[in-house]
Amino acid sequence: MVSTAVLVAVGDELLSGIRREGNCARLARALHDAGWRVLRVEIVPDDLPCIVEALTRWVGKTDLLVLSGGLGPTHDDKTRYAIAEYLGCGLAVDDALYERELSRYRGASLEKPIERSRSTQGLIPVDSLGLYNPAGSALGIYFERLGTKVWSFPGVPFEFAAMAAQEIFPLLSKTTRTWRSVGIVGVPESLAAQRVADVIADERLRISILPSFGLVEFVIRGEQALVESAVRVTRERFKDDVLPEGCATLPEAVLVTGREKGLTLSCAESCTGGLVGAALTGVPGSSAVFMGSAVTYSDEAKKKLLGVKQALLDEHGAVSGPCAESMARGVLALYETSFSVAITGIAGPDGGSTEKPAGTVWFAVAWWNGDEMKSYSFVRRFEGERDLVRERAVRVALITVWRRMRERL
Amino acid sequence: MVSTAVLVAVGDELLSGIRREGNCARLARALHDAGWRVLRVEIVPDDLPCIVEALTRWVGKTDLLVLSGGLGPTHDDKTRYAIAEYLGCGLAVDDALYERELSRYRGASLEKPIERSRSTQGLIPVDSLGLYNPAGSALGIYFERLGTKVWSFPGVPFEFAAMAAQEIFPLLSKTTRTWRSVGIVGVPESLAAQRVADVIADERLRISILPSFGLVEFVIRGEQALVESAVRVTRERFKDDVLPEGCATLPEAVLVTGREKGLTLSCAESCTGGLVGAALTGVPGSSAVFMGSAVTYSDEAKKKLLGVKQALLDEHGAVSGPCAESMARGVLALYETSFSVAITGIAGPDGGSTEKPAGTVWFAVAWWNGDEMKSYSFVRRFEGERDLVRERAVRVALITVWRRMRERL
Repeated sequence: MVSTAVLVAVGDELLSGIRREGNCARLARALHDAGWRVLRVEIVPDDLPCIVEALTRWVGKTDLLVLSGGLGPTHDDKTRYAIAEYLGCGLAVDDALYERELSRYRGASLEKPIERSRSTQGLIPVDSLGLYNPAGSALGIYFERLGTKVWSFPGVPFEFAAMAAQEIFPLLSKTTRTWRSVGIVGVPESLAAQRVADVIADERLRISILPSFGLVEFVIRGEQALVESAVRVTRERFKDDVLPEGCATLPEAVLVTGREKGLTLSCAESCTGGLVGAALTGVPGSSAVFMGSAVTYSDEAKKKLLGVKQALLDEHGAVSGPCAESMARGVLALYETSFSVAITGIAGPDGGSTEKPAGTVWFAVAWWNGDEMKSYSFVRRFEGERDLVRERAVRVALITVWRRMRERL
Repeated sequence: MVSTAVLVAVGDELLSGIRREGNCARLARALHDAGWRVLRVEIVPDDLPCIVEALTRWVGKTDLLVLSGGLGPTHDDKTRYAIAEYLGCGLAVDDALYERELSRYRGASLEKPIERSRSTQGLIPVDSLGLYNPAGSALGIYFERLGTKVWSFPGVPFEFAAMAAQEIFPLLSKTTRTWRSVGIVGVPESLAAQRVADVIADERLRISILPSFGLVEFVIRGEQALVESAVRVTRERFKDDVLPEGCATLPEAVLVTGREKGLTLSCAESCTGGLVGAALTGVPGSSAVFMGSAVTYSDEAKKKLLGVKQALLDEHGAVSGPCAESMARGVLALYETSFSVAITGIAGPDGGSTEKPAGTVWFAVAWWNGDEMKSYSFVRRFEGERDLVRERAVRVALITVWRRMRERL
């Protein structure tokens, strides 16, 4: 039987979109990877009745209920009082446990403020258990009722992560259920689904199809042997367009294919400002393939670092095919890599013109053919806001590099 | 009266943490900025009864209910059937509307697959209204019941954004309620709250206190005049540690302070792989201050681009104060900026040693004192996983740069 979980994040800042929810998302991933089913993720306000309602709604209906946030020392921290109200009990400071927290801060500048927060952060509903927080000073809370284990952790991301690692991870035993991901590049979602209609129809599997810009990801869940066989079939049907085995993302694919073929890569980034490098170096071990980026945001930097000529900039502008190729060639020589990719564009919202509206991005790839340097460039026009334009430019750059690396014998 | 909204994201991939919810978070921000109150954000699975339950739970209890996802052409797209079940009606293809979608793809490679998806993507519950999708081919759905306006948009982020802009944004009239954010650097949360206890106690304001690594953010909501006065008081109490007016983030603070003082900045990034540059260039207009980064992930690149000496690397290693200072000085000269910051460390999980465990990161700042180049370096040890170490290193680099820039007369 699959164990179930409900995750509840408490915080006005999450409901207003000022902060992005991440604690429940990351814990959901860990639970999912261990074969659990997450029934819901809910964001509720810093409001006592709303937190009590969430407890009432889910206790007794799930194996695990985890609350994130609302345990700090300030006026907007309401979770401990909501738990006490739900349990119908009072609260008391857990002095012994709070002393243990305090002992980590003895002599430090934080000792006094933390001592002063004892009457809030140390306060625990008497029918529940206080939990040691290894990464901060706000205590966690645990209780069990109607067959549901309820954990409440502070919302500061590294404190939540540390407490989840301490309290929840020991529960996650491995199951025979598993999941695998297959990434397909450049095939429309409906065509991709059609090509593996028989796999999708298999009722023993649970398959999600996740389209995103330039990429369709199949997530296939079920018993191990069935999943393996479905993955094999799916990969065969998309031969040229499937990301390498074990790769769920484009940066992983670039690094795996680069490593397989003994290729190295460098980037010249303008409007993406370092995002391509950040994406690649987000994967551990990326240094085997990725040597570095020249982030040349100004024309001066393009000239000085990459040897882009002033005459070229005067004639074509920085957002142009010739400039992109010159950047790619410049960085190829600078980092002495086998491949390079350059991105130069107008992310917006300002800086566009009729001829080159915001969202116009030029790409170039350069590589060695023996001793001869080769390059080509192309342009894409992206719609949407600055962040979206940048994100899509990164995607196109990585797809381009990956396809060129694959073709390379 | 404040208008209310509930946002529901549909998708197994969100519940499993394979994808991070963003549509509802972004819409929540837009609603919040327009003075609305978002009551809940909920993530529900690709499961018909669960979607019906969410409709039943919220229709009649909020002014606006927006669903994201589940409108595509594949088997896991269930939202249109859930709406039909909730409304107790059948479904029919909206041919006229679908033709309008199709006309955008005439002659393109996508025309055929989209034509074939007519019987799914074009299907609309007969008691509701089909909505034109300006960014994709899956139709949106609208209905109103029990005083709640219900919108259902496709979950692909740019399609959701385009449909929200088309359907929801016209509803968001400006109100006299507003919110402002004040960022405080390097003051513990409880101390910060204590210093403005009187402001927090004002019941006409709604204040959230958001601690994150090195930064505490106060979000102050209420009637405009009250908010302005609370912001003024708060800023005065934190004189030296408050981010510049109008800045909610460190990149904004660095760019605003740099622009005010006529300073320029460059970065040399190793373990952060481009994240500092990406953070800075995420702010429009950043090119006035930020000239670029040298992302030197390999020793070779550090030597070649930044002039780090082999002897220095042999003696101290790449993760060391001398290497960080040499990188900062190298990039200061390379980009000819008034300031530079360098980051070199071990993000982990591999690559650490007893002496330099994973999470060890060296920072250096370099600047000009007349014609003389100055620099200093310091080390921090971060706990946590690769992404967290990188994120904190970016935070420390930006705080350091901002503080140095502020001190500069």
